[in-house]
Amino acid sequence: MPDHPPYPSPHPLHDVIAAADRAITDEDFDAVMTFYTEDATLVVKPGLNATGTEQIRRAFEAIAEHFNHSLVVTQGELVVIEGGDTALVVAETMLDWTQKDGALASATRRATYVFRKQADGSWLCAVDNSYGTDLVMSEV
Amino acid sequence: MPDHPPYPSPHPLHDVIAAADRAITDEDFDAVMTFYTEDATLVVKPGLNATGTEQIRRAFEAIAEHFNHSLVVTQGELVVIEGGDTALVVAETMLDWTQKDGALASATRRATYVFRKQADGSWLCAVDNSYGTDLVMSEV
Repeated sequence: MPDHPPYPSPHPLHDVIAAADRAITDEDFDAVMTFYTEDATLVVKPGLNATGTEQIRRAFEAIAEHFNHSLVVTQGELVVIEGGDTALVVAETMLDWTQKDGALASATRRATYVFRKQADGSWLCAVDNSYGTDLVMSEV
Repeated sequence: MPDHPPYPSPHPLHDVIAAADRAITDEDFDAVMTFYTEDATLVVKPGLNATGTEQIRRAFEAIAEHFNHSLVVTQGELVVIEGGDTALVVAETMLDWTQKDGALASATRRATYVFRKQADGSWLCAVDNSYGTDLVMSEV
């Protein structure tokens, strides 16, 4: 038996996040931006945040360049914790890309995303922190 | 030099969380509940959530009992990422308590808390997940 029981049937955020991943993978930045609130914050790397549509879009352009326009983003296990119109998503996020020398590379992060439910029932991302709790660096 | 620069001057949530920790330590559950939205969710343990004022209050009563009415909660490093009226807090949360046999015990968790800014400018907790990214159990 697993350490914790499976969560109930898939939360709508599973599909939302999968669609956002596809938009990032496709480098369709117009589509990517539709997943964020206007005043969202993206943790580009620990200590460097991008806030608002313009900064986040530029960050994604820089990220695409950084990964040689080959980044593929997917999610593994994903847990959604809803508190009213706010949801914390804890996810295993997988990054795959091709290095400049042609070698394949990959990384897995334990990420945290905060989504807000909108008036029409859709969910938008307010805080995108793919570094999860690694932002506090101490060993525990 | 640290891996990431220090964040700007302390966010108001530092004081809010310190006050909530004191209320938990004092077992002042009326005070504890003033830190949560009405429909907040507390992760009691992985796979077991308490949602809403009544369930959360009962969970804190059970937690106090579990720790022999000796639990002291404090925070170490704490990072706040704000996206509009929503904030993700990543924190090092320390628990100290006295076991039934009188021995002192302690635990440290890398926690994630989601707060929502209210109309009056105050912050209330919508998702309290002291287990952080440990909710996705795979090794990364």
